[in-house]
Amino acid sequence: MADMNHDPLPSWHEGKVKQRILDFIEQVTTPDSAHYVAEDERIATFDNDGTLWVEKPLLAQMAFYKRELLDADVLENGSKLKRVANWSMKSVRDVGGLTKLLVGYFRSGLTTDEYRAKVSQWIARAKHPRYQRKYTDLVYQPMQEVMQLFAQHGFTNYIVSGGSANFIRPWAQDIYDIPESRIIGSSTRTRLSQRGDELAVKLEPIPFSFEYRSGKVLGIERRLAKRPIAAFGNSLGDVDMLRWARTTQQSLCVLIHHTDDVREYKYGPDPRLYFGKSTLKFAKEQNWQVVDMKNDWRTIFSFEHDENFSKENK
Amino acid sequence: MADMNHDPLPSWHEGKVKQRILDFIEQVTTPDSAHYVAEDERIATFDNDGTLWVEKPLLAQMAFYKRELLDADVLENGSKLKRVANWSMKSVRDVGGLTKLLVGYFRSGLTTDEYRAKVSQWIARAKHPRYQRKYTDLVYQPMQEVMQLFAQHGFTNYIVSGGSANFIRPWAQDIYDIPESRIIGSSTRTRLSQRGDELAVKLEPIPFSFEYRSGKVLGIERRLAKRPIAAFGNSLGDVDMLRWARTTQQSLCVLIHHTDDVREYKYGPDPRLYFGKSTLKFAKEQNWQVVDMKNDWRTIFSFEHDENFSKENK
Repeated sequence: MADMNHDPLPSWHEGKVKQRILDFIEQVTTPDSAHYVAEDERIATFDNDGTLWVEKPLLAQMAFYKRELLDADVLENGSKLKRVANWSMKSVRDVGGLTKLLVGYFRSGLTTDEYRAKVSQWIARAKHPRYQRKYTDLVYQPMQEVMQLFAQHGFTNYIVSGGSANFIRPWAQDIYDIPESRIIGSSTRTRLSQRGDELAVKLEPIPFSFEYRSGKVLGIERRLAKRPIAAFGNSLGDVDMLRWARTTQQSLCVLIHHTDDVREYKYGPDPRLYFGKSTLKFAKEQNWQVVDMKNDWRTIFSFEHDENFSKENK
Repeated sequence: MADMNHDPLPSWHEGKVKQRILDFIEQVTTPDSAHYVAEDERIATFDNDGTLWVEKPLLAQMAFYKRELLDADVLENGSKLKRVANWSMKSVRDVGGLTKLLVGYFRSGLTTDEYRAKVSQWIARAKHPRYQRKYTDLVYQPMQEVMQLFAQHGFTNYIVSGGSANFIRPWAQDIYDIPESRIIGSSTRTRLSQRGDELAVKLEPIPFSFEYRSGKVLGIERRLAKRPIAAFGNSLGDVDMLRWARTTQQSLCVLIHHTDDVREYKYGPDPRLYFGKSTLKFAKEQNWQVVDMKNDWRTIFSFEHDENFSKENK
């Protein structure tokens, strides 16, 4: 165990969830504990949008595509433009519609390297419409603390996102301390192309895997052939992954509930039902830890005590 | 650098290839070298069949399927049985035929856990027809030494196999010191099923990805979003991967050439051509290191100096 005399989760208010996280870490890392877990089995999986950073009013990846498409030549008529402008959160589920819209964009023969470079450029300058901050500033500090504490205790952290892996990879090392190889996410087909003597991998506008709902479990299984012992999500899309992590009573399953419309946003996990139950009800029945962002998180963003932010948001 | 006063590759005869491997490691790990590579970029990829262990007369995975199918109820008629009995090396390329044959087997609703358990059971007792040894004894000692030396020098080793990842995972940690998450291999589709309150991932008889030829590059790119700086293969199926690794003059690309019909087998990489050239010719033109197993490897198998083996094979 690392030194726990100092508070290892300072952005968390004292309470049930914080205590459960600390107890869990102690149980699985104490060699003579009945719940001890060997290091190579200490796998933690984290959803990204809404679990590690802000997903409202528009998923960051959608904001990126919107910007890219508005800039691109593929927008030859008003109707496409209108569809882009009207993108909302619902679009993340409209895989077919999104695919169609991106066909023209990907048809340009973009390589994976070029795609990631475009994401890097965008994320370095794009500002979130409400906070007027870079998207990477909108990472939840309490979750960064959890990931850091896990890493200090021999856990291996993975991102498992419905968003595309290549959208997250360019900045995940700096922001989450998670390398490219531990980003599991949706992907389109790729093909190997040869330019002269050089090989390149090009993106195709055809979905390959969609890491959402059961796809998250299948993505984890395909990569790791192991179950996580801790999983964090915030939505219906994460329920299967949290259930998959629940191998023993000792597993840690956490659902982030967006309850803070002053500092962040207030919304439910998803209106759709999971086997006839709301995600929140299902989570409570499973004894998962539900984080009440307003009351459990002392600090959400590292910048929230800045004068400007306080003025605008209070 | 680890201590290189002792011979770090004792199973290799002194020679061009051994020296190139040692030089490569020194170049990429010496901080003030012009060719220094940071640890997280030191990625090495290894084909499995024919590169790390024996693939003749029948790929181990084919021998496993043959045994499984001979044992299984799915064999209701002689024609299927005959097809199984006639499987040869060529079958590895007959994905369609293999898929059909396995449809019945996978239709039984096998979970990934069950599949890996079956592999574990099989590999613990199956014997190679010629050597009368377990398949895991038929790993090439010189390659184990390379993988170990790489690991000691901050490399991350990956298996990239046309065989299925779940066939390799059950024994790769013990034999290669490579964890499940670093096995990249072919896979079939999976689906999430629910038995009562328990979730399980079941295999479907539908190909999902085939890590062969360009598929090896795409599999690496999809998982790591990075190029290897060292790649080892033995066949046409590995040429794209070796080319992909050849990002700089300093990369290490090695083609294992099976030249020893006394201790192992003697055969060429593949009769088919790569852009009009034989694999061997292409490798030489690219200045890849071609390993002549007979003359470059002092020891192939750890057991080869045993009295019984020597008697039978000389």
